[in-house]
Amino acid sequence: MIILGIDPGTATTGYGIIESHKKSGEFKLVDFGVIETKKTLSDAERLKILGDDIKDIIKKYSPEAVGVEKLFFTSNQKTAITVAQARGVALYICQTNSLPVLEYTPLQVKNFICGYGKAEKKQVQYMVQKTFKLKKIPKPDDAADALAVALCAGHFYRNSKYL
Amino acid sequence: MIILGIDPGTATTGYGIIESHKKSGEFKLVDFGVIETKKTLSDAERLKILGDDIKDIIKKYSPEAVGVEKLFFTSNQKTAITVAQARGVALYICQTNSLPVLEYTPLQVKNFICGYGKAEKKQVQYMVQKTFKLKKIPKPDDAADALAVALCAGHFYRNSKYL
Repeated sequence: MIILGIDPGTATTGYGIIESHKKSGEFKLVDFGVIETKKTLSDAERLKILGDDIKDIIKKYSPEAVGVEKLFFTSNQKTAITVAQARGVALYICQTNSLPVLEYTPLQVKNFICGYGKAEKKQVQYMVQKTFKLKKIPKPDDAADALAVALCAGHFYRNSKYL
Repeated sequence: MIILGIDPGTATTGYGIIESHKKSGEFKLVDFGVIETKKTLSDAERLKILGDDIKDIIKKYSPEAVGVEKLFFTSNQKTAITVAQARGVALYICQTNSLPVLEYTPLQVKNFICGYGKAEKKQVQYMVQKTFKLKKIPKPDDAADALAVALCAGHFYRNSKYL
């Protein structure tokens, strides 16, 4: 079972692909990375690149479900708006591909990965590294965040199938 | 020349279609309305309906350009986020159809339509009614707003073609 995790943003959107082993129930790292768009482009042009790249990732890996990071309220409204626009496109593409979308706030991700909602970003990244037995923390941060949200979605989705 | 105006929102997205007469330069009202989605649906499901409906409108009317209302900063961040998500999908669909997207803040729309950036919503709607020689103000408000943004885009796009 393949799960896709997405951490949306206009300039940089992180993605992570994980696979759950049928027998052991462990998660294996398949791929991760970021979709980047240039700030010289218009919002519409950037969102087109983002949506098309997510489409390609879905086509390449055929995930069964998607975990997407939810927006938390921030003091920087301008950033919140551009991130929300990117998030809208990500949700639209997932739904167009009939994929179940599981949404998690950063607090829920931290709680699930570290057992503590106020964990530091670094702690989450360290746990992602440990889970996949990697030599280094996956870089950049947005890709590590996407893997964390993929893990949340993967656990929930796998367990819900056996309920 | 057909112009599409969009006033995005998750629950209600207004749209307006106008046509510019070649000789007189006047704008004729072609169609207007709203795309509504139920709040019992998930964000992803609502955005899918919105995106697909915008796609259908573009297919039906073949606009040459699109005017989209820009988000202004608001005290209600939750609303801003859902509106921005809808806006992201609208921009993505327009760009996917290779349509030039012109963006206007509510202040710019008011300035253009009423000649006064702090004009009341009602004044904008009244000017939309007068421009198209309608018996009543187009309803609901989101559709009237979409027609106002279509007028801004129409004027700008038509003039820019003769520069």
